[in-house]
Amino acid sequence: MLKLYCAPGSCALASHIALEETGADYTAERLNFGANQQNSPEYLAINPKGRVPSLVTDRGILTETPAILAYIAQSFPKAKLAPLDDTFAFAQVQSFNAYLCSTVHVAHAHRRRGARWATEESSFADMKRMVPKTMGACFALIEQQMLRGPWVMGDSYTICDPYLFTIAQWLEGDGVDIASTPKVADHFKRMMERPAVRNVLGQAEA
Amino acid sequence: MLKLYCAPGSCALASHIALEETGADYTAERLNFGANQQNSPEYLAINPKGRVPSLVTDRGILTETPAILAYIAQSFPKAKLAPLDDTFAFAQVQSFNAYLCSTVHVAHAHRRRGARWATEESSFADMKRMVPKTMGACFALIEQQMLRGPWVMGDSYTICDPYLFTIAQWLEGDGVDIASTPKVADHFKRMMERPAVRNVLGQAEA
Repeated sequence: MLKLYCAPGSCALASHIALEETGADYTAERLNFGANQQNSPEYLAINPKGRVPSLVTDRGILTETPAILAYIAQSFPKAKLAPLDDTFAFAQVQSFNAYLCSTVHVAHAHRRRGARWATEESSFADMKRMVPKTMGACFALIEQQMLRGPWVMGDSYTICDPYLFTIAQWLEGDGVDIASTPKVADHFKRMMERPAVRNVLGQAEA
Repeated sequence: MLKLYCAPGSCALASHIALEETGADYTAERLNFGANQQNSPEYLAINPKGRVPSLVTDRGILTETPAILAYIAQSFPKAKLAPLDDTFAFAQVQSFNAYLCSTVHVAHAHRRRGARWATEESSFADMKRMVPKTMGACFALIEQQMLRGPWVMGDSYTICDPYLFTIAQWLEGDGVDIASTPKVADHFKRMMERPAVRNVLGQAEA
C-alpha cells in the first residue's frame, strides 16, 4: 500500500489530493514541521532532503511533487489524471507542473525560507518584501497564458489542478489577492467543490 | 522539424544534448542573453517567461527542462533515454530532474540572478556568498545518495545525465571544486567522451 508523508500547509497537499482522486488504498502520515520532524534521523532515512512529499511504494521511495504526480497518473490510468496516450499533451502537463515547482514555489519560499539562500536578516526582509510582486507576476502569467479553464488543461481535470490549487492556497499569506486573477479564483472554488479535495482537507483539519 | 531555442551557458544545454542523442532532425537557435534577446517581443511570443529552453514542435511550443527532456525521451523511444515501460523507474528519473530544476538550478541562480527575489545590493552579495555552500550541499547529496554510477540511474544512460552534466558545468563558477565529488567528476568526464556531447559543445563554440 502507498504511504504519503506530508505536512499541513506544504506542497504535499497536491500529491495527497491526486492520490485521493484515484480511489487507491493509501495512508497519509503528517510530519510536524514545528517540531522539525522533517529533519529527524528517522525521516532523513526516508528522504535525505528533509522535505515533503515522500511517497513510499512497494518498489521504493519517490520524492519531488512533479515526479510523484506523474507517477500517480501513470499508476492509476483509470483515474484519467493525465493525457497518458498523447506525448505532447503529457509534456504540456509536465511543463505546467515544472513551472510551479521551479519558479512559483520558489518565489513563495522566499517569504519564510530565506535562510536557504542567504544569512542576513536584512536579506530575509528584502526577500520577503518582494514576494507579493513575484507571486503576483507568476499568477498573472498563469491567468493570462496557462490556465485554459475550467481546469488548467481545459475540459479535462489533470494532475496540474491539485498542484495549482495547493499553491493558490498560499496567495493570501503571500500578499496577493486571488480576486486579481479571476480564472484562478474560479478554479480555486471549483477545486473546493470536489469530494477528493474536501476529504483531504477534512483529514488535515482533524 | 523540431527547433530548440537555447543560450550559451544555460540549462538548455541539457535538452540540446538529449535531442542530439536521439539522432532526430532539429535545429538549434541561440539567443544572445547579453543583448537581452530572451525578453524581446519576438521571443516572448514564443515563451512568455523569457527563458530558455523552448522547444518548437509541430503541435506547439514546450518549455521547462524536465518536461522537454521527458518529451524527447517519449518521442524517440528507440534512443532509450528513459525507462518508458517502467512507471516507477520513470518516476525516479523524473524525481532526479525535478530536484535539479527546483533546488539545484535555483541555488545556482542566486549567484547572478538575485534580482529575481530581492532588490538590495547587500542582499545580492549575501546570496552570492552562500552559493558555494548551497551548491556544495546539493552536489554532496547527489554524490552520496543519487548518482548510482556510471550513469545517474546506473548502467543505463538517461535524460538525467545531460541535465546533471549541464549543471555540473556551473560548479567551478559557483566556487565548488568538482573533485570533492569524485563520482560527479567521473560522470562529467564520461559525458565529455560522448559524441553527442562533443557535437553540441562544438556547435556552441562555433
